[in-house]
Formats: sequence, structure tokens, C-alpha cells
Amino acid sequence: MKRTSRDIRTANRYEVLRQIIAGSPVSRQELAAATGLSLATVATLVGELLDLRMITEVGFEDSAGGRPRGLVAVDASGGALVGVDIAETYVHVELFDLALNVLARAEEEVRPGESRPERVVGQVAAAVGSVVARAGIGADRVLGVGVSVPGQVDRDTGVAAYAPNLDWHGVPLLDLLAEHLAQPLYLDNPLRACTVAELWFGAARGRGDAVVVNLGTGVGAGLALGGGLHRGVSNSAGEWGHTTLVLDGRPCHCGNHGCVETYVGAPGIMQNIRELDPGSALLHPADQTATVDALARAVAAGDPVALKVVRETARYLGAGISDLVNLLNPQVVVLSSWVASRLGEPLLDEVRAAVARHALRRPLAATEIVLSPIPTDPVSLGAATFALEGALQGAGQRSRATAARGRAVAGAPPA
Amino acid sequence: MKRTSRDIRTANRYEVLRQIIAGSPVSRQELAAATGLSLATVATLVGELLDLRMITEVGFEDSAGGRPRGLVAVDASGGALVGVDIAETYVHVELFDLALNVLARAEEEVRPGESRPERVVGQVAAAVGSVVARAGIGADRVLGVGVSVPGQVDRDTGVAAYAPNLDWHGVPLLDLLAEHLAQPLYLDNPLRACTVAELWFGAARGRGDAVVVNLGTGVGAGLALGGGLHRGVSNSAGEWGHTTLVLDGRPCHCGNHGCVETYVGAPGIMQNIRELDPGSALLHPADQTATVDALARAVAAGDPVALKVVRETARYLGAGISDLVNLLNPQVVVLSSWVASRLGEPLLDEVRAAVARHALRRPLAATEIVLSPIPTDPVSLGAATFALEGALQGAGQRSRATAARGRAVAGAPPA
Repeated sequence: MKRTSRDIRTANRYEVLRQIIAGSPVSRQELAAATGLSLATVATLVGELLDLRMITEVGFEDSAGGRPRGLVAVDASGGALVGVDIAETYVHVELFDLALNVLARAEEEVRPGESRPERVVGQVAAAVGSVVARAGIGADRVLGVGVSVPGQVDRDTGVAAYAPNLDWHGVPLLDLLAEHLAQPLYLDNPLRACTVAELWFGAARGRGDAVVVNLGTGVGAGLALGGGLHRGVSNSAGEWGHTTLVLDGRPCHCGNHGCVETYVGAPGIMQNIRELDPGSALLHPADQTATVDALARAVAAGDPVALKVVRETARYLGAGISDLVNLLNPQVVVLSSWVASRLGEPLLDEVRAAVARHALRRPLAATEIVLSPIPTDPVSLGAATFALEGALQGAGQRSRATAARGRAVAGAPPA
Repeated sequence: MKRTSRDIRTANRYEVLRQIIAGSPVSRQELAAATGLSLATVATLVGELLDLRMITEVGFEDSAGGRPRGLVAVDASGGALVGVDIAETYVHVELFDLALNVLARAEEEVRPGESRPERVVGQVAAAVGSVVARAGIGADRVLGVGVSVPGQVDRDTGVAAYAPNLDWHGVPLLDLLAEHLAQPLYLDNPLRACTVAELWFGAARGRGDAVVVNLGTGVGAGLALGGGLHRGVSNSAGEWGHTTLVLDGRPCHCGNHGCVETYVGAPGIMQNIRELDPGSALLHPADQTATVDALARAVAAGDPVALKVVRETARYLGAGISDLVNLLNPQVVVLSSWVASRLGEPLLDEVRAAVARHALRRPLAATEIVLSPIPTDPVSLGAATFALEGALQGAGQRSRATAARGRAVAGAPPA
């Protein structure tokens, strides 16, 4: 959608806070140099962040003769953020301070057949209550709760439109949560959560266009274009897993054939093993995680079949990533999510080689392919970042009390 | 790359001029309503365009009792723009007034083996001289010359980096042209020219994210995201023709196999005919244009083989376009260039059906697929639009004399 001057002000506010989080304590002059903004603009934005009590003045820098420069730093105690990762088999909740350090974690199991929305909502509410209590902070200091749910979501109405693996269709998730939680609530999906986490704290930070390739059970490509998330007109951009790699190839649960996901998602990798070595000891038929773990261990041990499986998977992955490189010409491609982190460097090396064979020379030369450097769960970090962005969006214009504006169903904010 | 407040001001300037071109005469109040900008912002931007003499005051609107509202309109005689379309077999040049009406056209043939850069540059210079003379305007009233050349271009240095069909490698095209032409010069490729033409005057106008699918000898997808052209980090985004549709499929001149282009570019369509009916009378072996024309005529006559060829081509095209829909979630997909315009509605109908079979429901529901509504050559129109954007970029900040700033080799502007 079209960007406005207001979007730019919001983006600048994000950028200044990112720099403060990365480099506290820091002077306004350093912030201006790091962001390319004018000192006057930085001073205004810093003032807004001080008003929001997200940052604080922490003294003066020594200066050689000139006027001493005031330093600001994140006020870690100025508020807290919650990130909720609702997945097919668990609900994972983390509470962060404003420097995005984890203060507390909670996890609830979602058993097969027990994913009714009301039940999961109860688990989320309990886990949020638990992390807030354990961190010993007041619920009124939680600036917002970001929620990630798989599949297609409608952020504006807070509805989980379609989550096949949970069997959710049009679930008014934030309405249901608002019955339990008083904080402003924000909804999106894991693909976009991981991407915003990379934009703020990972490999996409400060880069031009970036693509975050998520490799899990499903696969997708979060698009960070022009310094922000590219959502598309109905918030469903990034369905790279359902682009065609082999016309008339393997059947996909989306109804199509030959989708990227059927070759490089965890079940696709299991199929690659089956095709290369039908009786392989690597295969744990009903357990994707165990299979990928076994594959990773076998690769580390130099097992030739495992190496072949990784090479074949990387051949598919390299072709699919080359499509992204040729089409979007990004500065960086980040491999994220559990399959990427478990297979790690050996997969990365093979992928780089495969992309070098497939991609056009000019975009290839401009692109770096890396593993995600984010050490914790990127989904809950990203979900909390959505809440942080929500809290920042209104800075300078309105109080926290209306921070969830734009979504009519937001819970009433705490006094 | 990251957008700045200055980019937004430039985009707003574009938008106001677009609205004035579309709706002259028009009041500032109507412009504010149409663009969503404040009346104060519109008044400032209109003032800049008046200073540039691109628009003019044309009297007052009747108003029921209130203060009469001043009307502005494009000053068609306020300047002229030249669009140059350098293709494999011809050089096509058009001169436009500021409402982007064509005032004069010239064409020069490029014969096989006669595409040396110096020779083509001479042809461009002669054709530009010819259109300026025939339109009877002074060369000093030409605000800029936009040049489109196939392949990979470096806009900042004005170098045609790689144009395989012309056998050009690293040709300093704008330096060479500046020896003949005194106007500010702008370089880009046909894919981006068509896309910017759709953004200003075609189906992408006023839309959110749009994709312009170019179907010619080669194929590509111009990306109009967030109201502007998505160029990527090295200005090579859009190489959809070299994304993989059939892994290990037909060999492509890029060195890869199974690229979209090998199935839906004009030579790919010829191959589709060969595979369906090896001795087909539709085939003119050495002539793509004649073959596509014969195919279009046979479809119109209801020839069953021709219908089958279009259906098969649309099957490939539908899968490739679904990839764009799933990945980018655009509001509109525009089919452009000569193959699309010659095969027209019959191809469009089959493509829509094929995309409906392939794409995911949510992005599919948000996307319209249309034929380009631009009635003239979109490449020269787009190239002239680059010159118009160049002239606007500096509005309010600097005079026309420095309009080519940012490219060191720009010809000295006329006095």
C-alpha cells in the first residue's frame, strides 16, 4: 500500500529506538549519525520516547572542550512486552523488558484434538498471567501483547482466518483473548513475526531489501522491502512455499502440485530421504523433529546418505531461493526457523553453492545468504516486537490508552 | 532501499501531477480529496509545479456562494519529453507534451550485425532531432530524454551493463548520447519503463501493490510495490522470466533449466506449438512475430490446435503468475507487451482460469488480472515518464539546470 509521511515518521521512530536498544547509552549526535536523520528530527523523536518513558536520560558524555552531550538509554524497567507463539503442538509465551531481554517464559502443551479456540485462549491467558507474575511486574506495565498464530490472519479485525493444522476457520482470536487480557493486543503470523524480528534485531537490520526464508513444517518467505514488512494488499504476501518448483510434481496440501514446500519443508525432506534410501534409519515416520535431528547428527558424522539428502534438499532449496533472488534482488537472504537452525552450516554451504549455480549473475553478486543470528525463539520475539511497534505507532500523537486504535475489539487498557 | 521523507515528498509531487494530468482542469480542493493530502500540502506542491511551468492557472470554478476556487491544468506547451525505446531490431522515439500526448514519432531500423553502440547512438540522436524538428518546438523546451535499453542497466552511471541480444557489455550509453544531446538523460530497461507507464497512466495507477507481467521475446515482471517501482538493491528486480517453473525442464539461455521464459516467451510459445503439433502451419520458424500473429488469427477462427496451444501456454503462464500472486499478494496483475496484446482476450480468459486453479484463495480473492489498457507503445511512454520524474525530482529545491544531478555524465542542459 502507499506510504505516507506519517508512515515515514513511524519508521524513523522505530529506527531511532532500534539504535538506542543496540547501543545504549548513546547521544543524540551518535543517533543522527547512525540513522542519517537530522539532529533536530532525532531530538524530537528522542523527546517522544522520553515522554513514553521507554528511554531515560543517563548522564553526559565526556567531550573534549565542547558542550557535554546528554546520553539516553533504554529504560528496561519502563515497561514490558509479551510475545505469544501459538503453534500446532504448543503455546509458548515470553515476557520481555524494553531492551527485548527475556524476563520470563511459559509453555503450555496443545495435544492433538485439543486445539479448540476457547481452550487455547485459556492456555494463552494462563501463560501470560504466569510470566507477568513470575517477572514480578504489574500487569499495568505491560505495554502490549503480540500474538502469532499460523496460517492466514486478518490483523485489523484480529481474526485467525485460516489455520489448517489447528483446524481454525475465522476464529475471532483477539476478541476471545480480550475477555482475559486487558492490554492492547496485536495479531499476526509466524512468518511475519520472524521477519520483523530479523528487521529489528537480526540479519535484516539496517539492510536494504531482505528476504527471511522460514524452513519448518511449512515454509514461507517474509519480505522486508524498503526497510519495512511487505504485507501485500490482504496481508498474505510471502507464500513462497506455495510457488511452483516442479510443474505437475509432488502433491501439496494446498491442492496444487510441485510447490516448493513439498520439497524443502520437513515432510518434504522426509520424502527426499525416502526417495534416496527407502529403508533409511534416518526416518522416524511419525516424527519430523526426530528425523531432522537424526539427519543433522548423521551429517555431522559424515554419513554419505545424509550428505546426499542435504545436497538434494539444497538443490531444491537453491532453485527456490534463486527465484527470490532473481525476482526481488535482495541484499540478504536469511535462513530461519527450526529446520534451518538444526541443519545449520552444512545446509547453508550446500544452499550457497546451489544458488550460485542457479541465480543470475547481477542479483547474485548483490546477495548474501546467512543463517538467522537470533539466538532465541524468533516468533515470540517478533510477536513482542509487533506490540512494541504498536506502542510506538502513536508516540507523539496519543497516549498509550489508545495504542490499540484501529482494532475496535482491543481490550480496555489498564488505568 | 529505505524510503526517506524526501522520497515521500517526491512521490506526493508525482501523485499531484498524475491527478492534474488525468483531470485537468482541477481545483486544489479536488486534488486534496483525490490524493488524500492536506490542502496546505497540495497548495505547496501546486506552487512548485507552477514555478516549473508544468501547469498553469486556468480560471475559476463556479461555486455556490463560497469563494471561487482557482483551477489549474497541465501546461501542455510548458515543455516536452522524449522517450527512446532501443530494441533488438529497431530504435523507436516519441516526443510527448507534458500531458503525455504523442506529438511526433520516428523509427530507425537496427539490422542484424549493425547494433554497434556508436551506430545505434547515432540513430537515436538522429531520431530525437527529427521528432523535435517535426513537432516544431525548440530543443531547449525538451525537459529530458528517457532511454530504455534491454537487459541489465546501471541507471546511476548510465551504463548498459549487459544486453545479450544487442551484444552490448558495459556500454556507457548516456556518455555516448551526451555527445549528441544536450538534455538531461535517464536510462532504464523496458521492463521498468512499462511498469512506470502502468503506474502513471495504466492499470497500476492509484492501486496498491501491482505486478506488470511483460510477455515478449523475453519475459519479466515489473514490481510496483507501495506506490513505487521496486528496483532491488542493484536495480535488477523483476527477473521472473528466470524463475524456475519446471526443475530440470527446458534449457534456457541464462544457463539454467525450466525457467518461466522458456515456456511463455515467444520462442517458448513456438516450442509449445512444436510439442503439440510438430508440423503446424502456425509455425514460421525464423519469425516469432509472424508465428504469434498466425496463432492469434487461428484462435479467432476457432482453430482447435491454436486453442490448445493457447490453453497450454496459459497453463504455464497461470502457474508462473500464481507464484507472483502467492508471493506478493498484489491488487492487480497487468499483462503487457506485444505477445499479450496480440493474443489478447482469449489468452487472458485462459490465464484467469489457470490462476484460479493454482493460486491460494486469500491472495487470489484480492487480485485482478487485466490486459494493459495503455493504447500506445508503453516502453517509450515509460521512458518519457522517467524523464518527467527526473524533472519533478528536484522541484522546489533546484532549477532545471541541475535536474540530471546524481548522474555525473549528464549533458549540460540548455541555457
